[in-house]
Amino acid sequence: MFVTFEGLDGSGKTTQLRLLAERLTAKGQTVVVTREPGGTELGEAIRDLLLHGGNVAPWAEAALYAASRAQHVEEVIRPALARGAVMLCDRYVDSSVAYQGIARGLGLERVLDLNLAAVGGLLPDLTLLLEMDATVADSRMTGKRDRLEREDASFHARAAAGYRELAARFPERIVVLDATLPPDELAERIHGAFLSHS
Amino acid sequence: MFVTFEGLDGSGKTTQLRLLAERLTAKGQTVVVTREPGGTELGEAIRDLLLHGGNVAPWAEAALYAASRAQHVEEVIRPALARGAVMLCDRYVDSSVAYQGIARGLGLERVLDLNLAAVGGLLPDLTLLLEMDATVADSRMTGKRDRLEREDASFHARAAAGYRELAARFPERIVVLDATLPPDELAERIHGAFLSHS
Repeated sequence: MFVTFEGLDGSGKTTQLRLLAERLTAKGQTVVVTREPGGTELGEAIRDLLLHGGNVAPWAEAALYAASRAQHVEEVIRPALARGAVMLCDRYVDSSVAYQGIARGLGLERVLDLNLAAVGGLLPDLTLLLEMDATVADSRMTGKRDRLEREDASFHARAAAGYRELAARFPERIVVLDATLPPDELAERIHGAFLSHS
Repeated sequence: MFVTFEGLDGSGKTTQLRLLAERLTAKGQTVVVTREPGGTELGEAIRDLLLHGGNVAPWAEAALYAASRAQHVEEVIRPALARGAVMLCDRYVDSSVAYQGIARGLGLERVLDLNLAAVGGLLPDLTLLLEMDATVADSRMTGKRDRLEREDASFHARAAAGYRELAARFPERIVVLDATLPPDELAERIHGAFLSHS
């Protein structure tokens, strides 16, 4: 089973991913946890270019995410799924569509097409979208910010709108959750969504 | 005017590009010379990943070339053309279509679409395709080989076939030249093609 976590930076998806991984591991399931961009040697090198480099043109950004993802699918995700593991991934195709397709304005369809080509059509069985107002998400972020995290509030608000558009388009796959719920309650709902999609 | 040089490694395109640049510069034209992948700070970092890194999945390779190209068009090619320079580029979209689309088997249309998105539809005014048998081109290569140059002969033969397919598809733009001609004569023909497309 292939599960992805999506949402704005600050929405708590990395914490919730870890909580679900612990819960499944405690029940004896094999769980593989990974993140994008990154997850492979090539992907981590691309991550550095994307998040800590200088000027990156909008389509260069979109293509670099797609390149990292293609490598990730081939090296990590498909082999893990073939072994029967539960694959939990922090960001995937929906992130590119929301951020590059909608927030950067490259176009939902064009960025989705690029990514579907890059991953050979592999979409998650379940996507947990942790929805939160962009201003609230921003106020919850701590530590040094990378290139994308430093974008202004309207960029993140457009990404949030992009996520809503995706949720409307893929209602079976994408479960929208209120990220402002107490973490324990949110974890319960995520586990429930996991069970109902298993 | 935007001119690209295409052909197999070993076909002499880098030499011929330099000869045309010298000739145009001697006549007082502003010429900008660049290469792909590379041509920008981001592009050179991507070039390292592509040519000297470890395992690269086929779609990751295609997306990395597209990313380098998107940056190249935004930072170098469009500004040079806007200044009225003659832009000579060693490899461009056709390389990706021939090598990743045809030789790697990702598909001509899909790789062309990805690249047209990445470059905002910018195709050259003239493409000089230096055609040469893959075995002959291979025998002319000297020095340490990068990751793509180490591919086997059938890969390079498929790329050559990909170039022929592109030449048939874009007959106005792509001028096919016999790369086994003496360099001086080849340079004359290239200059003639340049003048007739100016």
